[in-house]
Amino acid sequence: MAKSLTEVLGIKYPVLQGAMAWISDAGFAAAVSNAGGAGIISTGGRTTEYTRDEIRRAKSLTDKPFGVNIMLMAPNKEEIVKVICEEKPAFVTLGAGNPVPFIAPLQAAGIKVIPVVPNVKLAKRVEKAGADAIVVEGMEAGGHIGVLTTMALMTQVIPEVNFPVVMAGGFGDGRGIAAALLMGASGVQLGTRFLVAEECPVHANVKQKLIEAADTDTIVTGLTIGGGAVRGIRNKFSEHFVALENEGKTDKKALLDMATGTNKLAAVDGDTENGMMQAGQSLLPLKKTEPVKDIMEALMREARETLAQAKDIKI
Amino acid sequence: MAKSLTEVLGIKYPVLQGAMAWISDAGFAAAVSNAGGAGIISTGGRTTEYTRDEIRRAKSLTDKPFGVNIMLMAPNKEEIVKVICEEKPAFVTLGAGNPVPFIAPLQAAGIKVIPVVPNVKLAKRVEKAGADAIVVEGMEAGGHIGVLTTMALMTQVIPEVNFPVVMAGGFGDGRGIAAALLMGASGVQLGTRFLVAEECPVHANVKQKLIEAADTDTIVTGLTIGGGAVRGIRNKFSEHFVALENEGKTDKKALLDMATGTNKLAAVDGDTENGMMQAGQSLLPLKKTEPVKDIMEALMREARETLAQAKDIKI
Repeated sequence: MAKSLTEVLGIKYPVLQGAMAWISDAGFAAAVSNAGGAGIISTGGRTTEYTRDEIRRAKSLTDKPFGVNIMLMAPNKEEIVKVICEEKPAFVTLGAGNPVPFIAPLQAAGIKVIPVVPNVKLAKRVEKAGADAIVVEGMEAGGHIGVLTTMALMTQVIPEVNFPVVMAGGFGDGRGIAAALLMGASGVQLGTRFLVAEECPVHANVKQKLIEAADTDTIVTGLTIGGGAVRGIRNKFSEHFVALENEGKTDKKALLDMATGTNKLAAVDGDTENGMMQAGQSLLPLKKTEPVKDIMEALMREARETLAQAKDIKI
Repeated sequence: MAKSLTEVLGIKYPVLQGAMAWISDAGFAAAVSNAGGAGIISTGGRTTEYTRDEIRRAKSLTDKPFGVNIMLMAPNKEEIVKVICEEKPAFVTLGAGNPVPFIAPLQAAGIKVIPVVPNVKLAKRVEKAGADAIVVEGMEAGGHIGVLTTMALMTQVIPEVNFPVVMAGGFGDGRGIAAALLMGASGVQLGTRFLVAEECPVHANVKQKLIEAADTDTIVTGLTIGGGAVRGIRNKFSEHFVALENEGKTDKKALLDMATGTNKLAAVDGDTENGMMQAGQSLLPLKKTEPVKDIMEALMREARETLAQAKDIKI
């Protein structure tokens, strides 16, 4: 029997906070770890100095395990990995590129390695390469997405591997966490649900839009650009971008240039019209801003209550 | 407390067989009903005579409840509804249009009405209009699809309504059925999983391709054409079609003309290169052709075993 996620990471609850570029910093990640899950600092678009400072800052804010996300498309990924090996957070997640070459060096530094994978083939490949666990992310997630959904991935990936599988994408409440664990997941990663946490540094304008949003309020930009699909809230920017894509008259380079910087514009500057507010499909559970601890306790309470109802289902 | 799906329909197992145009006929639907679920005859692209004959034939093959699907984009939908009211199958499912005007007439004929809906707003609307249950279908399903996924829909729709919710999209095994029931669904609809049933009349060439297919082997055509998204197996036709869409030089009318007839070409004629093999994302559970009864019993056994494991999950 494979170890559980909570055993592998030494955490209380099987809940990770998904890394979010320009948003998930040391303060936010430490709050999630202090609440019993594991927070993750994002290094996408950041320098090695930022990475070192944030890991040190998180260590000053929590004595619990936390992680760092490495964006494998980043030009400075080698230098970021070097800093991480020196500063030694409990674990890393890695996505948007080939994680295999980084597994052994990070583990040699005492860091657990959890690649983010979008399908069965890559799940098997990183298991064989010795990864400690995987995050498997469905396309209902916010931000950069693949094509397979959470239910399709839970159905197909979990039976094919024998190490902890953390499911991500579309989870917003304890019922979903219970369902994932019942299907054999070892944990769940949530991003969007934590965006409205008081400790989350995303701009207040974005939090307000998320609280107001309905289930149908996300849109995917970049579907016509290979590998560039990003899910976020419908607004002036995202709807215009998709209209241009469907019209087919704007070349890919121009579209990529249009998208550059729009995540930061929303998340940091609070421009909810011209920025891209990255978010997943499960938006109705976001009803107010509240402390991370309250969100986490509500999630776990509901997950326990849901699992307790299994005995009453007669089929 | 709302009635359960099995109570509403008078069936043994909470499992519907999703309607599939040119595929799910009386023989196939009756086999699913005889196995304890409820089969559904597809009338998409069919005449009133076909509809009447197939309902009568299904009644000769099973004394169990079965359903008929009404494609609300069909030009002959009014006439099809009239025939259904006369022939009285146990229930109908209705999709691809506004089901509300048809609810009262069908119920007056003693037929249960189960609209297929893609989001919270429409789920609430058909509940208010008196529908007996709903099918809520995630975009991992095969054939015509919306944009929300099964996990996002289970998270957001189920808490908002108080009548039986049947989840569809991405289910391929008993683990998924157990997870849906645990989240509060009253049943599950499977399409792709039943395509490899011995009693399923889809062409043997298609069954073979489905058995060989991996999790990443579906593609969605028509994403750039409003309302025209269809999921099926990657092949010469579907990959060429999507390439033309992304290139943006072919107008929508020409694309729609290209797609017309391609479902039948695969399903009936067995052309797996130039036809569109409609199928959902959960393909790995399809390992061989086998009787519907064996598929159904395996699904239910695994669902029961999975639910029994809930008590061992400590969080």
